[in-house]
Amino acid sequence: MTAKADANLAAVVETTQGSYRVVVGQGIVESLPEEFEKAGISGRAFLIADEALFPVAVRRVQETLEAAGVVTHVMTLHAGEQAKNLETLSYVYDWLADLRGERGDTLISLGGGVMGDLVGFAAATWLRGVAFVQIPTTLAAMVDASLGGKTAINLPTGKNLVGAFHQPRLVLSDLDLLATLPERELRSGWAEAIKHGLILDNQLLEDIEANSDSLISLEGEKTAEIIRRSVAIKADVVSADEFERGETRILLNYGHTIGHAIEASTSYGTFLHGEAVAIGMMAAGRISVELGLISEEILKRQHATLTRFGLPTLAPGLDTTELIERTKSDKKSRGGAVQWVLLDGPGHATIRRDVPEQLVRSIVDDLIGA
Amino acid sequence: MTAKADANLAAVVETTQGSYRVVVGQGIVESLPEEFEKAGISGRAFLIADEALFPVAVRRVQETLEAAGVVTHVMTLHAGEQAKNLETLSYVYDWLADLRGERGDTLISLGGGVMGDLVGFAAATWLRGVAFVQIPTTLAAMVDASLGGKTAINLPTGKNLVGAFHQPRLVLSDLDLLATLPERELRSGWAEAIKHGLILDNQLLEDIEANSDSLISLEGEKTAEIIRRSVAIKADVVSADEFERGETRILLNYGHTIGHAIEASTSYGTFLHGEAVAIGMMAAGRISVELGLISEEILKRQHATLTRFGLPTLAPGLDTTELIERTKSDKKSRGGAVQWVLLDGPGHATIRRDVPEQLVRSIVDDLIGA
Repeated sequence: MTAKADANLAAVVETTQGSYRVVVGQGIVESLPEEFEKAGISGRAFLIADEALFPVAVRRVQETLEAAGVVTHVMTLHAGEQAKNLETLSYVYDWLADLRGERGDTLISLGGGVMGDLVGFAAATWLRGVAFVQIPTTLAAMVDASLGGKTAINLPTGKNLVGAFHQPRLVLSDLDLLATLPERELRSGWAEAIKHGLILDNQLLEDIEANSDSLISLEGEKTAEIIRRSVAIKADVVSADEFERGETRILLNYGHTIGHAIEASTSYGTFLHGEAVAIGMMAAGRISVELGLISEEILKRQHATLTRFGLPTLAPGLDTTELIERTKSDKKSRGGAVQWVLLDGPGHATIRRDVPEQLVRSIVDDLIGA
Repeated sequence: MTAKADANLAAVVETTQGSYRVVVGQGIVESLPEEFEKAGISGRAFLIADEALFPVAVRRVQETLEAAGVVTHVMTLHAGEQAKNLETLSYVYDWLADLRGERGDTLISLGGGVMGDLVGFAAATWLRGVAFVQIPTTLAAMVDASLGGKTAINLPTGKNLVGAFHQPRLVLSDLDLLATLPERELRSGWAEAIKHGLILDNQLLEDIEANSDSLISLEGEKTAEIIRRSVAIKADVVSADEFERGETRILLNYGHTIGHAIEASTSYGTFLHGEAVAIGMMAAGRISVELGLISEEILKRQHATLTRFGLPTLAPGLDTTELIERTKSDKKSRGGAVQWVLLDGPGHATIRRDVPEQLVRSIVDDLIGA
């Protein structure tokens, strides 16, 4: 068992709250009790699962833990972005209060990024913080959202305005859990892995390109390996900049300046997050070319890779002025100019605050087909 | 200015989130800008004040900051225990959202312990954590609640079930702000200072006894000095055990096992916190005598001191069985027997888990006059 578990180890993330293991593999839900022991987790488990999952998947997690003697309470929630709010959080608190959740107990999120944000925030704040375990069930959560300890809920006035940095004690990604994920969500998930390659690891990018067929069809070991390498990149970044105070973690925002603006201006209803980021990466890549940071060739390669994974690269019909304004409100919360993450080579990114608005405007015009 | 400010320094608390200064003195609100600078605080200030304070006190804080160029937004709240809930928190979040509070801004609590708990939790969670400053306006908050980074709100099912450890960047206690505090609350506040002497510093206890007249009448420099020494004791304890994982911080619970039970069984409506703790200290002191840990003399001395400060030492009419049951539900959340903090000398405390229920019952019977 130990040898197998270590083969699945993608990263050990170091944080001020302790270190945690991230394991990725196929059919590894059964190693949960072993991983709990390694993480020093005891007490009862409070498993909060996305109600859209097949009940058999939820039962598999619960029964694995119960068989190992871990008392496991289960609740299911609708895990949509609209439900990631104070009201749902209050519902989770009431459940924990009814069952008298204690300081030594553990909250487990079984779902995508939204679920992880909400359950993670509940874990950060219940009794001033209890242990938290992530079992992501979407590709986007496996390669990105489950790592780094950011938890949050939305307010009516904005996304993720309330939250905490609360590190998980374990992240366990079992590819089996992706089996029921809609294909569009799967494709969207690859956007963040491609992003990790583009900004920090050219070799990863090449391997994603060379194995695109296997990855799109979720072929087991190759897919697990690529996810592990993508996880390792994000793990390095968040270990180096746990509280997002430095510049390192900002690199992960490649494609997100325009991506967030697109999501907000379509009220999060038109594009999946990875799709909006793909379009945003095309904008940031084009800016990089125009500023002479990368060649046209590199941008074409980025375009080909995104297209290969069925990701959009244009956002027809949106409004340029609105998008530009939204990038500025991003700016305001950092007290300076818009911070653009740009490529300055394949596998290499840089931060620039001197991108002319005129240039951004003409590039966004092209993206929306104006 | 610097010499004066340092004379007011009660403690520098070391935490994983950085260190912070605790200053105590008379007429020191005006040193706020200087203390902000020392703490590295910039950005706007969001001042949340207890609506029971005189408007002139709130304006004094606001105008001091504004005069130093700190943009300061002010809101007042009803700061009762009943209002320390998700609904009030949500109201604070909406205010911050409307004013577009940013990561570099600071939340200031101007009020007692309840206000500090609520505003501290808002600061812990707004944008995943912003700077927090405590300006306590009750004696209990000055000597106790403002230190240690515990923040929380209540749920309908229990007190302080949701919260975070979020350290302040500065605690500034100006005795001027106590001028309007009701005498009963003032007396209640001394209970925690007396407790600090009893469990950890016999010299402090002796000085409190010797200066009781000056302290009760809030005579300036002597009062400030005693508060500083009480603060220094708590600061040592919370620095050594930031997250309440060890045994050190538990010592601060002297008098709280029965104290909390008394508060809960009277629905927090009969006794002030310090009053309930005073009665609880009499129970714990009596147990200490019966177990042969301290002499009857020491208990008499504790009784005399509490009485001198007008604190109650009996709780007539309560129900012994209910109180005992409530001490056990305290126990459950620590997965073992009831943890009693007992005296084993003046200025020295110890933790015992082997106190016979029979003994507790007969002592509580005496306290309630059964």
